[in-house]
Amino acid sequence: MTEHLDDFARVDLDRERRTGDPEVVYGAGKTPAQVVAILRALHERHPDRAVLATRLGEDARQAVAEQLPEADLDPVARTAVLGPLPEPSGSVLVVGAGTSDAPVVREALVTARVHGARAGTVLDVGVAGLHRLLAVREELDAADCLVVVAGMEGALPSVVAGLVGVPLVAVPTSVGYGASFEGLAALLAMLNSCAPGVVVVNIDNGYGAAVHAARVARAAHR
Amino acid sequence: MTEHLDDFARVDLDRERRTGDPEVVYGAGKTPAQVVAILRALHERHPDRAVLATRLGEDARQAVAEQLPEADLDPVARTAVLGPLPEPSGSVLVVGAGTSDAPVVREALVTARVHGARAGTVLDVGVAGLHRLLAVREELDAADCLVVVAGMEGALPSVVAGLVGVPLVAVPTSVGYGASFEGLAALLAMLNSCAPGVVVVNIDNGYGAAVHAARVARAAHR
Amino acid sequence: MTEHLDDFARVDLDRERRTGDPEVVYGAGKTPAQVVAILRALHERHPDRAVLATRLGEDARQAVAEQLPEADLDPVARTAVLGPLPEPSGSVLVVGAGTSDAPVVREALVTARVHGARAGTVLDVGVAGLHRLLAVREELDAADCLVVVAGMEGALPSVVAGLVGVPLVAVPTSVGYGASFEGLAALLAMLNSCAPGVVVVNIDNGYGAAVHAARVARAAHR
Amino acid sequence: MTEHLDDFARVDLDRERRTGDPEVVYGAGKTPAQVVAILRALHERHPDRAVLATRLGEDARQAVAEQLPEADLDPVARTAVLGPLPEPSGSVLVVGAGTSDAPVVREALVTARVHGARAGTVLDVGVAGLHRLLAVREELDAADCLVVVAGMEGALPSVVAGLVGVPLVAVPTSVGYGASFEGLAALLAMLNSCAPGVVVVNIDNGYGAAVHAARVARAAHR
Amino acid sequence: MTEHLDDFARVDLDRERRTGDPEVVYGAGKTPAQVVAILRALHERHPDRAVLATRLGEDARQAVAEQLPEADLDPVARTAVLGPLPEPSGSVLVVGAGTSDAPVVREALVTARVHGARAGTVLDVGVAGLHRLLAVREELDAADCLVVVAGMEGALPSVVAGLVGVPLVAVPTSVGYGASFEGLAALLAMLNSCAPGVVVVNIDNGYGAAVHAARVARAAHR
Amino acid sequence: MTEHLDDFARVDLDRERRTGDPEVVYGAGKTPAQVVAILRALHERHPDRAVLATRLGEDARQAVAEQLPEADLDPVARTAVLGPLPEPSGSVLVVGAGTSDAPVVREALVTARVHGARAGTVLDVGVAGLHRLLAVREELDAADCLVVVAGMEGALPSVVAGLVGVPLVAVPTSVGYGASFEGLAALLAMLNSCAPGVVVVNIDNGYGAAVHAARVARAAHR
Amino acid sequence: MTEHLDDFARVDLDRERRTGDPEVVYGAGKTPAQVVAILRALHERHPDRAVLATRLGEDARQAVAEQLPEADLDPVARTAVLGPLPEPSGSVLVVGAGTSDAPVVREALVTARVHGARAGTVLDVGVAGLHRLLAVREELDAADCLVVVAGMEGALPSVVAGLVGVPLVAVPTSVGYGASFEGLAALLAMLNSCAPGVVVVNIDNGYGAAVHAARVARAAHR
Amino acid sequence: MTEHLDDFARVDLDRERRTGDPEVVYGAGKTPAQVVAILRALHERHPDRAVLATRLGEDARQAVAEQLPEADLDPVARTAVLGPLPEPSGSVLVVGAGTSDAPVVREALVTARVHGARAGTVLDVGVAGLHRLLAVREELDAADCLVVVAGMEGALPSVVAGLVGVPLVAVPTSVGYGASFEGLAALLAMLNSCAPGVVVVNIDNGYGAAVHAARVARAAHR
Repeated sequence: MTEHLDDFARVDLDRERRTGDPEVVYGAGKTPAQVVAILRALHERHPDRAVLATRLGEDARQAVAEQLPEADLDPVARTAVLGPLPEPSGSVLVVGAGTSDAPVVREALVTARVHGARAGTVLDVGVAGLHRLLAVREELDAADCLVVVAGMEGALPSVVAGLVGVPLVAVPTSVGYGASFEGLAALLAMLNSCAPGVVVVNIDNGYGAAVHAARVARAAHR
Repeated sequence: MTEHLDDFARVDLDRERRTGDPEVVYGAGKTPAQVVAILRALHERHPDRAVLATRLGEDARQAVAEQLPEADLDPVARTAVLGPLPEPSGSVLVVGAGTSDAPVVREALVTARVHGARAGTVLDVGVAGLHRLLAVREELDAADCLVVVAGMEGALPSVVAGLVGVPLVAVPTSVGYGASFEGLAALLAMLNSCAPGVVVVNIDNGYGAAVHAARVARAAHR
Repeated sequence: MTEHLDDFARVDLDRERRTGDPEVVYGAGKTPAQVVAILRALHERHPDRAVLATRLGEDARQAVAEQLPEADLDPVARTAVLGPLPEPSGSVLVVGAGTSDAPVVREALVTARVHGARAGTVLDVGVAGLHRLLAVREELDAADCLVVVAGMEGALPSVVAGLVGVPLVAVPTSVGYGASFEGLAALLAMLNSCAPGVVVVNIDNGYGAAVHAARVARAAHR
Repeated sequence: MTEHLDDFARVDLDRERRTGDPEVVYGAGKTPAQVVAILRALHERHPDRAVLATRLGEDARQAVAEQLPEADLDPVARTAVLGPLPEPSGSVLVVGAGTSDAPVVREALVTARVHGARAGTVLDVGVAGLHRLLAVREELDAADCLVVVAGMEGALPSVVAGLVGVPLVAVPTSVGYGASFEGLAALLAMLNSCAPGVVVVNIDNGYGAAVHAARVARAAHR
Repeated sequence: MTEHLDDFARVDLDRERRTGDPEVVYGAGKTPAQVVAILRALHERHPDRAVLATRLGEDARQAVAEQLPEADLDPVARTAVLGPLPEPSGSVLVVGAGTSDAPVVREALVTARVHGARAGTVLDVGVAGLHRLLAVREELDAADCLVVVAGMEGALPSVVAGLVGVPLVAVPTSVGYGASFEGLAALLAMLNSCAPGVVVVNIDNGYGAAVHAARVARAAHR
Repeated sequence: MTEHLDDFARVDLDRERRTGDPEVVYGAGKTPAQVVAILRALHERHPDRAVLATRLGEDARQAVAEQLPEADLDPVARTAVLGPLPEPSGSVLVVGAGTSDAPVVREALVTARVHGARAGTVLDVGVAGLHRLLAVREELDAADCLVVVAGMEGALPSVVAGLVGVPLVAVPTSVGYGASFEGLAALLAMLNSCAPGVVVVNIDNGYGAAVHAARVARAAHR
Repeated sequence: MTEHLDDFARVDLDRERRTGDPEVVYGAGKTPAQVVAILRALHERHPDRAVLATRLGEDARQAVAEQLPEADLDPVARTAVLGPLPEPSGSVLVVGAGTSDAPVVREALVTARVHGARAGTVLDVGVAGLHRLLAVREELDAADCLVVVAGMEGALPSVVAGLVGVPLVAVPTSVGYGASFEGLAALLAMLNSCAPGVVVVNIDNGYGAAVHAARVARAAHR
Repeated sequence: MTEHLDDFARVDLDRERRTGDPEVVYGAGKTPAQVVAILRALHERHPDRAVLATRLGEDARQAVAEQLPEADLDPVARTAVLGPLPEPSGSVLVVGAGTSDAPVVREALVTARVHGARAGTVLDVGVAGLHRLLAVREELDAADCLVVVAGMEGALPSVVAGLVGVPLVAVPTSVGYGASFEGLAALLAMLNSCAPGVVVVNIDNGYGAAVHAARVARAAHR
């Protein structure tokens, strides 16, 4: 996370300029006041570029809504964005297996946009209803990078990666119960995908998947 | 396992007559001589009905070939069958994701036949190549019970169960490496299937899946 | 889950007609308002056939009771059923090891009925009191499919499968503490059953077991 | 293990005199020559009392057979006993679920005898064939302590403990495959037994179970 | 658990008469009203013999205090005892490593007494302060059976079993944090004790350990 | 794996043309004769494009060397390549933490080249010697995609991802012992990287990482 | 923990005098009243030497603030110190990877001081921003012992141990989510450090790390 | 590991001069020829200072014996030392629980000496025979740092740390079977030690423990 405000400006600003990555605040474990303060400070330093806050609880989102009314809040993604989005370059498509995966799908969507990619979503295309997935095959094929989100048995990335050759990041979610072990089953499934080239991030880490995907998408349109 | 030769005849024979299940020898951990002796004894007691031996190593299969030449050996399934198969009733289709799953697929095939069902196989229809699976959809739909075998991410049962409403038993295999943890990834995936009605057996347990499937298939054609 | 309301009607309705499976709403993670809305919509589309909602918390059940008074609520199973049950065909018997397994037993019972089977329960026949189990042996034998529910050491399916040859689905429950690891001990025990033909579903998944069992039971009486 | 030969004689000999426990050599990881040397030295120190060696590989047993021909070797238990058994007091019954559990059953049998109890075995009374177990109920009831050995789902101790009130030590074995995880499934099952008073030892630890059982049996006949 | 109130009287009463084991109510997951009702019913059936309830939350204990004022409540053990204790026979000593293990120690203490043994406790004799343990060595040696309770690294049973030859049941507790994994570390340690004859029960299962210990103690004084 | 030789030509050839991905033979579990036969058949079908075989044991490599002398064998990567490499487009840099990671590094290197990217390696830049890593910072920055390979604590991807903004795939290896649990420690570390945008593949899966990396690199130079 | 107040004075006081270790109260699971009472009693016994309480919840800290106003409370570390700190000898530097690790860092800081070492902290020097770490290299080198605290991938100790040869204790924290498994990922990473000489304590155990570090630091300046 | 021979001389030689740590070759996974070559090259560069090779198989030791006859080989520790030991400063005592822990004990012993400490061993002082441990208490107290090695339940470090206040590094070993899970039980036990200040290294990592211990011991006698 590059949310720290002080004495290390030189190197990180270099990296930021080169990579196009914005400043990000990881909200978990921070008080609403801290979230607001960091967002404001980062925004003042980068008024021309969106800063992103993730994993905001309801309290933090309310504090942001009141004190930073210009921020763009997404209650499903649990994110806040402050400042103008960059000009998009390249496209990321976020694909979600079920409706319960929506928070992770939305976090990925918002993150991809803040990191400079065009981004959209396709929802509710789980492997137990292939017709829904096959109906969006061309959409999948047209993206520069896919982020595929699934809980439970985590099978969707394998099926998608068998349909198209687009770079694909798989995100296991903690959706499930019992022997899903809070996303472990989906994580293991994705790591063992029989489709070549599937790469994986931590459970529920829509943010990390979208950072990678946006870099890949931007590079494809330099 | 009902391979024991002695003093418990009354009850088990009752159950056998009622259920149609044959005698079975689990070969793992038995010497070739023990396998031959038990097979021979069971066959003498049930000359009109096939007995089955599973998990036979190369040594045991060779001993059976030499000393029980009328036995039907399957080197891929690692099984031996001695005595006439029962008249089949109902159909079991064994579906395998990859060529490496063949031993488990064949063990299920032989077991289903010895347990009184018609049985066939569909191979190499992994989820990364959906067209192959979609091509056999009618075959899947025509079975009385499906046994779906897959290693790695274990996604095939979910996809098949989304296509047809036939009772379906999923078999995870130990095919994979690293974070497959010798079949654990596939097992967890199958237990967390998003498709309703998927039931699961132990890793590599083609035998157990087929016993259940044959019972289901036979009951559908009483 | 086939609870989605929109544009994918053709294929799924085909499958439903063929398989006899109803629409189901998985209530976990949904608001009471969402549960009510989906139930109502599904019921309007299928007025002649029961729809099922599972894993309803107390809030959701109260909302259903108030807004869909014709729904049939089961507080132990945490289910709601809206619309007439199908004509039953075939019988499922749900067997529970202990009184703490009741929620899972009842979820299986309701599910089996909504999926078109006759269904009943036998309770409190844990393996530490064999006389109770032996007393219901004929009842076990008369079912078309058994659903056997147990927590703790998960031994009941093995014992039941040794008594009768009826197809049997084992359901581990999260009943236990310490080294039960929320049902993992029972799950592993059931996957390793020494009785041939035992198949298993996820921890506490009475719903999934009953879907499979109802299909098996219906097929036996086509 | 009290196999060390040197400077700590005083206290341990005290304990030995008081408890009746013999000297024991744990053979795993020792060369045949080491096993022979330690057995011989212990025997010279305790000529009037049996010493026990466990976990002897084939090489070690052959070395013992050649160089200590008066030793009593058990190839199934993989043990050697040198010197006269103590006068037995109290009775231990070792109950085994399946034929594959025989090595652990025999290790417990030999250990119980060397530790001063009368001991016998009942074999092949797995829970999938209750009639065999029920047939020996009186035998179970007559013992001072039971050692119940089972692999796979490890259900036997719960069933036995439901039949009789005798103190009972459960021994999980590594018999099984896949999700048995080399005995872990049976171990967890036994730790979660629904029958009160079941106590457990490490996987395959017939020796440890029998040490406890013999102490219990001897105490019952002081 | 033998808490069920109905039609299985014959066999269980036989066992009870023979073994001296009382009726027990496992309170976890029961409402205060249920606990009171079952205790009262069991007491009416066995007015001359104590019945035991374990794992009672504060609500349940308060309900018992109000409605069954003659019950003996132990807030640390979270138990209630109703009816006269049996005449004790044999002695159980419950040894606890730390003050945080007190609930499990007390549960074992109460259970042993209700199951017919004399029982006492030795507390706070963890292995990091050996002098405290060595000071009670004679007390340890005088018991008929020891119950040794420890969390964290679970080392105490090994040390005690090295000091005396008395039968010993080890109870791991969930005391600890981080890599104790809620008692798993202590459980594994106890299962791997280098001292022969240590037997183990589930995490926090003071009840089960004491049932075994009381049987052993009673048998030593028949 | 797209190694199957028969009736599914149409769709897969389409995908291949579009994605630039070659045919691949996964050698584990195949006989040398099978490897040779499949390689030869794929080469005949695609004489103008390299086919790749991975995870070849010494026997298989020797068989390839004798019967397909024009194949390019890499004994460290355990790969064989048959046919001309594609014109490279974009660059992949494979970074290895230690010399023991060389097999995975080389597998990634060969795979990236066969999949159409320019590829090179930087070796032995583990995090305990940062000066080595800092010395190649410009090289890291110049790549279109990085594959970062490490065993043991798996820290290298986090450090590299903190230095440059290039898309980065992390590969845990099974290098280590004890609590590395055959690569699990490194896998978990990489999934929890504090550096945003790190994506991960299965343990030792240099092949899968390079497939993704080559796609990313090619897309950056379309 | 040496917080017990009674009859074991002689030996422990001996040890305390020799080692310089203070009395410590582990606050988790104690009531505020208990914490206050033990602190007061220990302080009365050792008025000239600080006693330490750790893991104090907000309630306990408030009770201490009110009833022992002379105590030094640290709300981040969740500690209380009562009595004068010892004259420091040797220096401990506590290094924290991220701001979320602050509670563990502070607990280590306070503990080191109470145990007789000079102590300071360096914060927010995670491995994804090496420049911050390299900037404090001389500070690291000047300490007598380092305590390095990190969650998530736990890479910081390896990097620090590669920079300096000072004795180093690694502390994994539970900071992270998903596949961090509450600190397990960081723990495993630290145990597998490729830098020689890294030693590790339990997850979040800043106290234990600082006890060791203070002993090492004091010994270096005897 | 600092075994690499080339272009990174400047910084590492600086560190070496400052810390006194020697060059080390980790032998696992290296050919005998590689081991000999690296040892020779390192020795030529540092003729006045011992270099160490660890984890040498029998082949590698034989190659060293033949080609580097001046090397000091330890077949139990599986180490080779080439060149003169440094002048020792400070003392490390390596304490082993059982005879099977000897390889790890010896590896620690040799490593401590090569890293500049005086070192000795105390063997076979497992916790089940406390008298042996108590007999060496003064020896324990006299060391500057202790390395305590134990397998199975891993209890020894807690007991030793309760006896003396010397800095102590615990080493779990893979000695054990079944639920020891190749040293995991001992590792967890040591991480959860109730004695403050116990620090831990990876399973069987005598080398790493001794590097830390030697640094601590040397610092105490600067």
